[in-house]
Amino acid sequence: MTSSTPWPALRVTYRVSASNPSDLHARVESLLLEQTVELPRAALRDPFVLENIVGRLVSVDPLEATNHRVVIDFPIIATADDPAQFLNVLFGNSSIQEHVVLADLQLPDEWPGRSHALPGAKFGAAGLRQILGVTDRALTSTALKPIGLSTERLAFLCGLFARAGVDIIKDDHGLANHRFHPFADRVRACQKAVLEANAATGRRSIYVPNLTGTPTVVLEQLKFAQDEGVGAVMVAPMLLGFPLLAEIVARHAKVPVIGHPSFGGATRILPECLYGKLFPLYGSDATIFANFGGRFSYSRETCGRLAEALTRPAIPGLAPTLPMPAGGIKYHQVGDVLSFYGREVILLIGGGLYEAGDDQALRARAEEFVRHVAEFRTEARQG
Amino acid sequence: MTSSTPWPALRVTYRVSASNPSDLHARVESLLLEQTVELPRAALRDPFVLENIVGRLVSVDPLEATNHRVVIDFPIIATADDPAQFLNVLFGNSSIQEHVVLADLQLPDEWPGRSHALPGAKFGAAGLRQILGVTDRALTSTALKPIGLSTERLAFLCGLFARAGVDIIKDDHGLANHRFHPFADRVRACQKAVLEANAATGRRSIYVPNLTGTPTVVLEQLKFAQDEGVGAVMVAPMLLGFPLLAEIVARHAKVPVIGHPSFGGATRILPECLYGKLFPLYGSDATIFANFGGRFSYSRETCGRLAEALTRPAIPGLAPTLPMPAGGIKYHQVGDVLSFYGREVILLIGGGLYEAGDDQALRARAEEFVRHVAEFRTEARQG
Repeated sequence: MTSSTPWPALRVTYRVSASNPSDLHARVESLLLEQTVELPRAALRDPFVLENIVGRLVSVDPLEATNHRVVIDFPIIATADDPAQFLNVLFGNSSIQEHVVLADLQLPDEWPGRSHALPGAKFGAAGLRQILGVTDRALTSTALKPIGLSTERLAFLCGLFARAGVDIIKDDHGLANHRFHPFADRVRACQKAVLEANAATGRRSIYVPNLTGTPTVVLEQLKFAQDEGVGAVMVAPMLLGFPLLAEIVARHAKVPVIGHPSFGGATRILPECLYGKLFPLYGSDATIFANFGGRFSYSRETCGRLAEALTRPAIPGLAPTLPMPAGGIKYHQVGDVLSFYGREVILLIGGGLYEAGDDQALRARAEEFVRHVAEFRTEARQG
Repeated sequence: MTSSTPWPALRVTYRVSASNPSDLHARVESLLLEQTVELPRAALRDPFVLENIVGRLVSVDPLEATNHRVVIDFPIIATADDPAQFLNVLFGNSSIQEHVVLADLQLPDEWPGRSHALPGAKFGAAGLRQILGVTDRALTSTALKPIGLSTERLAFLCGLFARAGVDIIKDDHGLANHRFHPFADRVRACQKAVLEANAATGRRSIYVPNLTGTPTVVLEQLKFAQDEGVGAVMVAPMLLGFPLLAEIVARHAKVPVIGHPSFGGATRILPECLYGKLFPLYGSDATIFANFGGRFSYSRETCGRLAEALTRPAIPGLAPTLPMPAGGIKYHQVGDVLSFYGREVILLIGGGLYEAGDDQALRARAEEFVRHVAEFRTEARQG
């Protein structure tokens, strides 16, 4: 990869839809800023930040109809050699903008910290083939399913498939630590079944348990499964989080890891369900989301339903939490936004304050923001 | 919630697009099966599974044009009281089907294991307001940004906002453990700045650090930040994984948690980029994805590019890994699929084997599958 930047760059290709040049220009400028500094260009005063943190445009090319191929270089230093922050730079807030699709990425040739962020496969194709003892043909695989069978039945199926010669016999991705087939019992029984079958056939079929749960539980499951001698493990990184996959591979895995695509289309969740229900159910006390009229695309109606779901949860036993609308609220819009949400809200304004100018102007604008919100209280009391 | 099922149900509302009744029927049937058993109905022989695991249709109503509101009850027992498996039942594989949107969910009234899966907010609106000492107005918030400033500058800004009276001063979600502002230094300096400002103003502004990294790193950051006395923490659950949020709240958090939406539109990633690049970069040795012509919607071209990216990674230093196409491959299609992918592939067939019939038929079909793949090797050698 050749780069025109003075720093090692993560080169990212997006597809951006825009029906006219001015929209396209605005969307490209937004991409350049959103993924690292998340501030309007006017609010960027630090020369180091301007030189070394803001994305640089490489090219814009028309694709079909209103779609464009936009290539941007981001400084790899912005990723902090961190697997979560890498995703953030790649497609964090921009993923919420409906006109953008992440299409491709290229890593810089020189990135000493890469193994911290992105370990890459430890075994790969060659390692898997070595474990299975198969080098000269495609590999076969099937799944133990469905949820709800007994441990004994799953182990029987595992043995059956191994005797039939299937190379990789994996848990269905829906097999968790269910009472019908608890994880430890299942792993022990299926591993025993596959080893017995291998002893009979002379092949090297492997049993691959599905790891699932919170990170601590998943790491315990990994240790247990490896101690039992399984040939590989399976995880669904979109479900568990990509950073956990990176940690497993970089720090704990002694066997290959198979990635499952479950939850891979997670965005196709209505915002009021994702932010209004799932965030609070998983324990968030306040939930940041894209306010109407800002850089993102939610409607007033969506934001209203979302806030309602957070402040008056329909789910029994769930504490009311606070909506935290953000993403391009200007400080002069505070009154409008408060009229819409009422008092049960946290108003989050970033760029709208930083745009004010120097530190003195910033301080004055922040105080004005605070006063606006306080005055709204008084008005509401009198009204 | 009233349920017509004999078991406590997770009631899920999907929006399903279909241009004719027969497509709609097929898509609804697929939803009923995909989220738990992931097998064709014909392959379901166990009475317990049929009674207690398969989803039950509650209603189908037209919305607008070709869109329909489909409500399904899934047995809550299928979630195994596990935060990851809960997402799996809710919108795991179905999220990959382009005609489906997750619209809403209702939990059963009776679910003793709920707190294991979904802790819900520990502090909520009331707890946050108590910490801030503000009960009668909206709350204010701003962000410390951009990435690339010095720790001293960020702490200065934190103090400035606190003196201006802003309630919640949070890290930008892009502030990770960067060398310019390492996490520990930043938390210490910003917390000090906010406390000094509070001493001067008599208010109770809080500093909220952004936690990011692999789960172990995030839990270390949480402990450090709590020991330093921060008022709350922020995480992006779509980036870090929802199960980590649940674990933080259920087991470790002593302060409120603010949820950030970054990566919340993660599906808008081309499959060849998500599965072909991100999965292997994060360390997966073999990656399961939806094969062309099956229950999902990827084209042959997409699958080809995806497989190419996995088997011949363009990224230096990345080991070749194995594509694992799946999702409705029939056993008689093995030859076609092999012709397409060649030998560097793991063929994953589940339902296509289980459909065979009883255990004897299943064993025979599994052996035939294995033979197919072995014969393809021979043919390829001779050809």
